[in-house]
Amino acid sequence: MSNTPKIGDTDLAELLARAGRRIRVGIVGGGTDSVIGGIHMLTHRVDGLAELVAGAMSIDEAVALSSAEAQLISPERRYTDWRRMLEAERIREDGIDAVIIATPPQVHAEPAIAFLEAGIHVFCEKPLASNVEEAERLREAADASSALLALNHCYSGYPMVREAKALIEQGKLGAITLVEGEYGVGVGALLREPEGDAPKHWHFRPGPMGKAVVLGEIGSHLHHLAEFVVGDRVRDVRAELQTIAPRREVFDNAYLSIGFEGGAVGRLWSSYVAAGQEHGLRLRVYGSEASLAWSQETPEELRILYPDNGAQIITRGSANVTAAARDATRIPPGHPEGYVLAFANLYREFFAALLARLTGDSAAARVDGWLPTAEDGVQTLRLIRAAEQSNGEDTRVALSSV
Amino acid sequence: MSNTPKIGDTDLAELLARAGRRIRVGIVGGGTDSVIGGIHMLTHRVDGLAELVAGAMSIDEAVALSSAEAQLISPERRYTDWRRMLEAERIREDGIDAVIIATPPQVHAEPAIAFLEAGIHVFCEKPLASNVEEAERLREAADASSALLALNHCYSGYPMVREAKALIEQGKLGAITLVEGEYGVGVGALLREPEGDAPKHWHFRPGPMGKAVVLGEIGSHLHHLAEFVVGDRVRDVRAELQTIAPRREVFDNAYLSIGFEGGAVGRLWSSYVAAGQEHGLRLRVYGSEASLAWSQETPEELRILYPDNGAQIITRGSANVTAAARDATRIPPGHPEGYVLAFANLYREFFAALLARLTGDSAAARVDGWLPTAEDGVQTLRLIRAAEQSNGEDTRVALSSV
Amino acid sequence: MSNTPKIGDTDLAELLARAGRRIRVGIVGGGTDSVIGGIHMLTHRVDGLAELVAGAMSIDEAVALSSAEAQLISPERRYTDWRRMLEAERIREDGIDAVIIATPPQVHAEPAIAFLEAGIHVFCEKPLASNVEEAERLREAADASSALLALNHCYSGYPMVREAKALIEQGKLGAITLVEGEYGVGVGALLREPEGDAPKHWHFRPGPMGKAVVLGEIGSHLHHLAEFVVGDRVRDVRAELQTIAPRREVFDNAYLSIGFEGGAVGRLWSSYVAAGQEHGLRLRVYGSEASLAWSQETPEELRILYPDNGAQIITRGSANVTAAARDATRIPPGHPEGYVLAFANLYREFFAALLARLTGDSAAARVDGWLPTAEDGVQTLRLIRAAEQSNGEDTRVALSSV
Amino acid sequence: MSNTPKIGDTDLAELLARAGRRIRVGIVGGGTDSVIGGIHMLTHRVDGLAELVAGAMSIDEAVALSSAEAQLISPERRYTDWRRMLEAERIREDGIDAVIIATPPQVHAEPAIAFLEAGIHVFCEKPLASNVEEAERLREAADASSALLALNHCYSGYPMVREAKALIEQGKLGAITLVEGEYGVGVGALLREPEGDAPKHWHFRPGPMGKAVVLGEIGSHLHHLAEFVVGDRVRDVRAELQTIAPRREVFDNAYLSIGFEGGAVGRLWSSYVAAGQEHGLRLRVYGSEASLAWSQETPEELRILYPDNGAQIITRGSANVTAAARDATRIPPGHPEGYVLAFANLYREFFAALLARLTGDSAAARVDGWLPTAEDGVQTLRLIRAAEQSNGEDTRVALSSV
Repeated sequence: MSNTPKIGDTDLAELLARAGRRIRVGIVGGGTDSVIGGIHMLTHRVDGLAELVAGAMSIDEAVALSSAEAQLISPERRYTDWRRMLEAERIREDGIDAVIIATPPQVHAEPAIAFLEAGIHVFCEKPLASNVEEAERLREAADASSALLALNHCYSGYPMVREAKALIEQGKLGAITLVEGEYGVGVGALLREPEGDAPKHWHFRPGPMGKAVVLGEIGSHLHHLAEFVVGDRVRDVRAELQTIAPRREVFDNAYLSIGFEGGAVGRLWSSYVAAGQEHGLRLRVYGSEASLAWSQETPEELRILYPDNGAQIITRGSANVTAAARDATRIPPGHPEGYVLAFANLYREFFAALLARLTGDSAAARVDGWLPTAEDGVQTLRLIRAAEQSNGEDTRVALSSV
Repeated sequence: MSNTPKIGDTDLAELLARAGRRIRVGIVGGGTDSVIGGIHMLTHRVDGLAELVAGAMSIDEAVALSSAEAQLISPERRYTDWRRMLEAERIREDGIDAVIIATPPQVHAEPAIAFLEAGIHVFCEKPLASNVEEAERLREAADASSALLALNHCYSGYPMVREAKALIEQGKLGAITLVEGEYGVGVGALLREPEGDAPKHWHFRPGPMGKAVVLGEIGSHLHHLAEFVVGDRVRDVRAELQTIAPRREVFDNAYLSIGFEGGAVGRLWSSYVAAGQEHGLRLRVYGSEASLAWSQETPEELRILYPDNGAQIITRGSANVTAAARDATRIPPGHPEGYVLAFANLYREFFAALLARLTGDSAAARVDGWLPTAEDGVQTLRLIRAAEQSNGEDTRVALSSV
Repeated sequence: MSNTPKIGDTDLAELLARAGRRIRVGIVGGGTDSVIGGIHMLTHRVDGLAELVAGAMSIDEAVALSSAEAQLISPERRYTDWRRMLEAERIREDGIDAVIIATPPQVHAEPAIAFLEAGIHVFCEKPLASNVEEAERLREAADASSALLALNHCYSGYPMVREAKALIEQGKLGAITLVEGEYGVGVGALLREPEGDAPKHWHFRPGPMGKAVVLGEIGSHLHHLAEFVVGDRVRDVRAELQTIAPRREVFDNAYLSIGFEGGAVGRLWSSYVAAGQEHGLRLRVYGSEASLAWSQETPEELRILYPDNGAQIITRGSANVTAAARDATRIPPGHPEGYVLAFANLYREFFAALLARLTGDSAAARVDGWLPTAEDGVQTLRLIRAAEQSNGEDTRVALSSV
Repeated sequence: MSNTPKIGDTDLAELLARAGRRIRVGIVGGGTDSVIGGIHMLTHRVDGLAELVAGAMSIDEAVALSSAEAQLISPERRYTDWRRMLEAERIREDGIDAVIIATPPQVHAEPAIAFLEAGIHVFCEKPLASNVEEAERLREAADASSALLALNHCYSGYPMVREAKALIEQGKLGAITLVEGEYGVGVGALLREPEGDAPKHWHFRPGPMGKAVVLGEIGSHLHHLAEFVVGDRVRDVRAELQTIAPRREVFDNAYLSIGFEGGAVGRLWSSYVAAGQEHGLRLRVYGSEASLAWSQETPEELRILYPDNGAQIITRGSANVTAAARDATRIPPGHPEGYVLAFANLYREFFAALLARLTGDSAAARVDGWLPTAEDGVQTLRLIRAAEQSNGEDTRVALSSV
């Protein structure tokens, strides 16, 4: 609770003062016709480390221009095509340092690769791409580039998610045995399909991601969260994919039974028809010595259950948390930080790493260690393909085989 | 909150006064070497409708006699063998009306059938038997007998479980789509297997029920609860059965994916290795219009979630509950009734039905409508066999095929 | 979870077997026209240590007789007057060992003193009497008698209430500083006063207890609970007593500000107009090192809050609880015991102490150490009088001065 | 969930585009030596409606300059004295539109009055001033000025707090009868006073606010919250103020018993010694028909309790909330918004009102209707004085008399 926020030893205010300016950011997508755009506006801005100076905010030209105007982007930097933005910005002296890719998944790989090749850092929405091949090309571009790519699995920004990961790493649960993840949503707009000729919700139109939209949209977060917290990769999957709501053409419920490389087993449930649930992301991890539970709807607490010894509730910001949680915390305990600050943690680490590069601060550059990577994105696309294959062939499928 | 408890229109005090005596009960098993015996003592007694007058309480003769003495059973009715008890009691003028079978599952069918054939009512522990064939013989005996058989799925005695069933019957959730059940226990005694030559916990010795003990012991409750609340039978199952704890010879974790006759799908998770969970029985049912959630550890409330409209918490004893819940309620709202009274609801209905028969009160006889039946028990044994087959053959198995 | 229940080293089954019979109990009041009678029936019976063999269950003769019949009390022991019951039972060879006094407070002292003088043990409803003078006479009778008097502050029977007391005794909270107690009820029948000539709820008719019925009925429990857990006496009080509901003649809301002998301060809030709360009894105790919180509606858990270190949830039945909680526990953790078993703990200890006297087991006789005493009851009557005086005179009043 | 956020009919993005620039903001205090400064940085920035362009951020010159540099304020606008800032900014063409006053309470009135007199809008920390007289002078200045003054009672920015207010206004609870507010904190830094010569926490040094710091710091929020939600003013108070922690010179615990103008009664408890509580702000309001409960630590839900009819949980963002809550909501239900966005709601409305004035949008100007006012601040200072007088004289004191 001061205005000298830190990530570990890295004093962000000092880093910013040293850089003498904010990170200059452009955005692809995220206009007023976008679902997630408004969230990116709140989150990239809250810490004051960056400023949005350019945008190609929609494929609809009028929307692109009005959206950029609403962000007070100067007229010459309101673009109608990301390729034009790339061309113009790469040669401006005050050109963008980084780009946010907030388009649908099939429009991630091409721009992201192009910006990376131009040395412009990329903060990319999830899922990384619409299929394994695209994702792998993007990962190769990221590997080859000097620029940074971060994948927006925003739930990994919650301090108590990081606490969970840190405690597991420390062995507090013993050997991990079972993993129970669920992301069951059931608000009205997702629960029901309109009758007649009304246009379907975009989640439910078959498209570049095929019928497994529920896995791409929310299952991808669940998969990342499970791997992130457990600290292990999913090795194989057995899936049952269903279409529950009448008049729907894609899957809206997915039961996945998974095995981890390290031997743990578990289940990941993703659903749009969990009637009445508002968000529904929860993770429980069981070990030989204890278990933990975290729910996105009450993110400030992490519950540890001990056999024969009741429960411990670890709260964000309290003195006993690990550095992993403390570094992701801005305000005192008891004042809920919520989703926007969790999401903003990814931006904070991304921008801090870029400021560190600007100023040549090699210690600070390592603040990006928590950020989801292109490889994480590739794994998710493999999981989705393996799940679809498992569902079709009624077999367990190894991710390495697809 | 009066001493004239009622089940619907049936005034139990009046019924008891009319009968002029309590139901006379004997017990097979449930001695001081038994796990569940103490619970039966509390629950059969709390409403004052019955008295325990005879017992063959253990296969260990000394334990059988001392256990019966501790219950103040008169010396000549302290038996060391259930067959002797049956012979003696059936010819006594003041012989037992009913028998509690509290033995392990492989010792259910033979005594239960014998008592039923003698016209003595049976209150039988779950699972009904150790395999499908035994269960079916017992069901046939129950069908053929004038005596009543009740199966002890005690969790169905909770008022808010009955409320859940009633609300689903009334259509409050719309068409049922998804069913999520779990019974994940993880106290130390179940989580770990002793090293060396120490005797294993009886749950983990392969025996008459084979390796699927976790399904017989706790999965059976979960199966009954799901069918009871949803009001539909499980049609098929796909199972993954695991042995998680080192040095264990039987399954201690079971993931079941199920389909219901009516089209709903769902998952039943039974586990002894959910570290730190004390009881862990929970049920969520999703429909096209709303969903509900109930947890055995906070049994006084039933949560209904409405898409776009927050949640409603229905509390035991409040004026808005259905007759189903009200009839299972003894004390005012806000005073938690807990497990013993829920369990005792089954005894209350069983004994009330027997008092009704004694007094010829045909209306009251119908108070046994909620009691789990032999057919319920047969279904569970089918589910267990189907799950084992599914696990072994890696296929989905219909319960009707086993 | 066995049928050999114990209180510490005292094996109740063995004690009962040694005694060779149950404790013989009579009851004054508690008939079908009583509010609390039904609860006494469930609670005195559940452990099988006693049998109800005599009763003068109402001042209405017909109700007295029919109520006793409904309990299967033999005809000659269905009394219509407690004096007749006392006369008859004291000379019977199989006369009652103990009597339950379940009448309104102004009818406690006279029968209780008479039974105590006859050497018959008394289990008395709260508040102990309707005023300080009666209460003191009763305490003197109890002190003079060889028989035991227990006062029914049933909430002190909850295992986790006893855990709270034990932890405070052990110093886990440090020096006690603040005590926050509340018992705010708001069910419809108490929240509103009938219009017109409809009879008022008995809680709201001025009577022998004057206008402070809310303190006698529920404030008395709150006072006992606070003193019991903190392990200290309330020394003085400042009170504001209100009549909130229209058309009501007595106080239905009471704010008490209290000081303890040991220096802690606190507040006790008793209310019948806490709209929508079902039971509402909660206690929080703060110390120099930590605090604890317990709520009767979720009685299985005790929450300990540590400065800068999150919270610990201690659950009934887990291995880490003190002997205080363990001795009051019957069934495994995770199976909620609820109100009836908590209430029954007082009976269990009362009957166990009587069995110990029957059998001459001096060690077991000490199992009555937790039972609320006549002195506890006297203190409550002092508190009520002091509160009324404080409210009238707008001053702080010492309990020792009234 | 779009980047066209609205308050009612006022589209903020459109308003901003019309204005063509952000609101220019200066700050007094809030430097790196400040407790609350970091929060102001996050909150004034998150919606992108304003930019911090000037600051006199500390009375320590070096801290003032380095703090401003860390915010990337241009060198000539890094001031070391608020008077210099006022002089310079009022004559700049691009001078500040508004000023944030984030100094201790005794340094509110003088700068706030000066800025208001210069026509510069003021966003002022609470409590409004250090005593009634200062507060009244400031209120008069605000009344006389064309500029807006908003008082930072940030908890009134929570959507579900506004929902509570709206539901009470609609009569959903009936006539308000009882109000229970508490703000009990107990983190280690506040719970204990250092031994020896270590400097005391600034909360606990007697200063311009006298000994009642606990009321100024947290009691002021509690008072505002209660008045805001109930929609009525506190009329009189009876107070008990205590010093609980050893070695402390000021009050650290305050029990207030209050009466409202409209007849409701209630209690406000403010404490720094509620060991282990992290934030502890909670409000319950009882009416003749229902009650509601809200807790700052779980701010996304508002619980309504109905006599005899269970509870309803209203969740932020769900379709059934009132416009009051909807207008204060940015992101979809189930994604916790938390403290920063609640706090930012006050800034959002303050800046939106200023943008409306810039653009001459008279409809939008009314978006400041929720903002706490100078009159609110005056009332709080009256309450504090009345409470101190009540505590000293052992009487109930009317706020109008002090």
